[in-house]
Amino acid sequence: MTKPLFERVAIIGFGLIGSSLGRAIRAHKLARTLVACDRSDQALATIARLRLADAATPVAADAAKDADLVVIAVPLGAYAEVANQIAPVLKPGAIVSDVGSVKGTIVRDLSPILPPHIHLVPGHPVAGTENSGPESGFETLFEGRWCILTPPPGTDPAAIAKVTDLWLACGAMVETMDAAHHDKVLAITSHVPHLIAYTIVGTASNLEEDAKSEVIKFSASGFRDFTRIAASDPTMWRDIFLNNKEAVLEMLQRLTEDLTALQRAIRRGEGDMLFERFTRTREIRRRIIDAHQA
Amino acid sequence: MTKPLFERVAIIGFGLIGSSLGRAIRAHKLARTLVACDRSDQALATIARLRLADAATPVAADAAKDADLVVIAVPLGAYAEVANQIAPVLKPGAIVSDVGSVKGTIVRDLSPILPPHIHLVPGHPVAGTENSGPESGFETLFEGRWCILTPPPGTDPAAIAKVTDLWLACGAMVETMDAAHHDKVLAITSHVPHLIAYTIVGTASNLEEDAKSEVIKFSASGFRDFTRIAASDPTMWRDIFLNNKEAVLEMLQRLTEDLTALQRAIRRGEGDMLFERFTRTREIRRRIIDAHQA
Repeated sequence: MTKPLFERVAIIGFGLIGSSLGRAIRAHKLARTLVACDRSDQALATIARLRLADAATPVAADAAKDADLVVIAVPLGAYAEVANQIAPVLKPGAIVSDVGSVKGTIVRDLSPILPPHIHLVPGHPVAGTENSGPESGFETLFEGRWCILTPPPGTDPAAIAKVTDLWLACGAMVETMDAAHHDKVLAITSHVPHLIAYTIVGTASNLEEDAKSEVIKFSASGFRDFTRIAASDPTMWRDIFLNNKEAVLEMLQRLTEDLTALQRAIRRGEGDMLFERFTRTREIRRRIIDAHQA
Repeated sequence: MTKPLFERVAIIGFGLIGSSLGRAIRAHKLARTLVACDRSDQALATIARLRLADAATPVAADAAKDADLVVIAVPLGAYAEVANQIAPVLKPGAIVSDVGSVKGTIVRDLSPILPPHIHLVPGHPVAGTENSGPESGFETLFEGRWCILTPPPGTDPAAIAKVTDLWLACGAMVETMDAAHHDKVLAITSHVPHLIAYTIVGTASNLEEDAKSEVIKFSASGFRDFTRIAASDPTMWRDIFLNNKEAVLEMLQRLTEDLTALQRAIRRGEGDMLFERFTRTREIRRRIIDAHQA
């Protein structure tokens, strides 16, 4: 057997993403030992039942001790707590990474807590489903998908290379960019779409019960795609919006202006304007299909 | 062979829905003769190549002549033109139906044109994909989906029964309701979701080229679901918004209010409010799954 990429990997937070990464790490033999950490009893029971890791613990410090890679995969709001727990036990030279959907606040929140003798290489695999929990993960989740790394200036290139190799081995494509830029791109591709889906499903759920039953009955006409998105984990999404406030509000502002323009065209019966707008959007779809991201 | 439900069915407009209905009618032997009508040469060539009908013609009057059922499946904006073409040739007792996504304007627009000796039974199969054209149709499109009929008061019950039987035979479930009510329910389940998807994809397509490339690259994070919806036929959707103006604007108003409330919560960092909203939307998803419409 060739030497694995890491000796001991600890994944803190073993939900959809954490457990998928764990499965991929095992499938591709990327760690000699994989330790799962989750504070939920139910998740720990699932990890044991499905034998998803070599060891599992509710204590982050126990998982992170002796690890050469620690991946934080909890909701953004729990990052500081996890960092405080693992900071005292992290071994010199260990790499700390994460899978969070917002990157600008990570360095700001984690750097003051983590010891200077570790390497912080924040990451974001752009993949997921609307399901949560360790039973929802699968080892091919990252195949053909992008993983964005946002190492702060001055990060050890060897540490960046190891995290890059990890994701490549999981079948992902890796791109490195500035954290602020990441947050702007994700605001429009992910955060605002989720907010809109939550909003529209919320608007429907505010209807009287009769109307609501009909909405459910006739949901095959577009609505159900939004309900799938709006079924994503509420804690994770609350934290995303609290941590990417500025970029989300900026993109929401643009969206609202565009929506107002369409609303006005409908009110005034401007068919040509509607047709032109609806035609232009097809091009983006074609480019997504061409880029094999459909 | 048992007597088919109809002797001669003419489908005017042989796109995704029209050709799917045609396929289902043939698969379940619901008509002795199926005539397809489409004004596009390309569609006519596809119909001939795939042998989707017993006869095909670009002339609506030729298709409708001698038919005991004529189904209009063109964009709403072309209804009046089709009605004017077929009115002189419709045989007494013929049923005229349609598959349009807005029902309130149908009776208003068609009744003055169609002769009094026919039966008008408007219908709307709540099913579809983002693809267009006769090559995109498939015979199982309506299976397990609802078809809503909105016959005006006083419509011959026998004609309603025959159209109901047609859709049941295609595997659909049938519900009858008032046209105005239909338009309100569909405004929230279908029309507003499509408008929002068009808007958000449009907002992204207004970004500078660099940012747009990144949006495409990282679209797996929610955005691509919107692009699929926003790839639907522009003519069809322009006509839907022009014909269901009031209900769409009313639902858009509610949506905008709810979006403003979430926007405010993000700006003020009100995590509890966000969490509560994002949790409530999960219930709707669960009910859609329970209703087998997911």
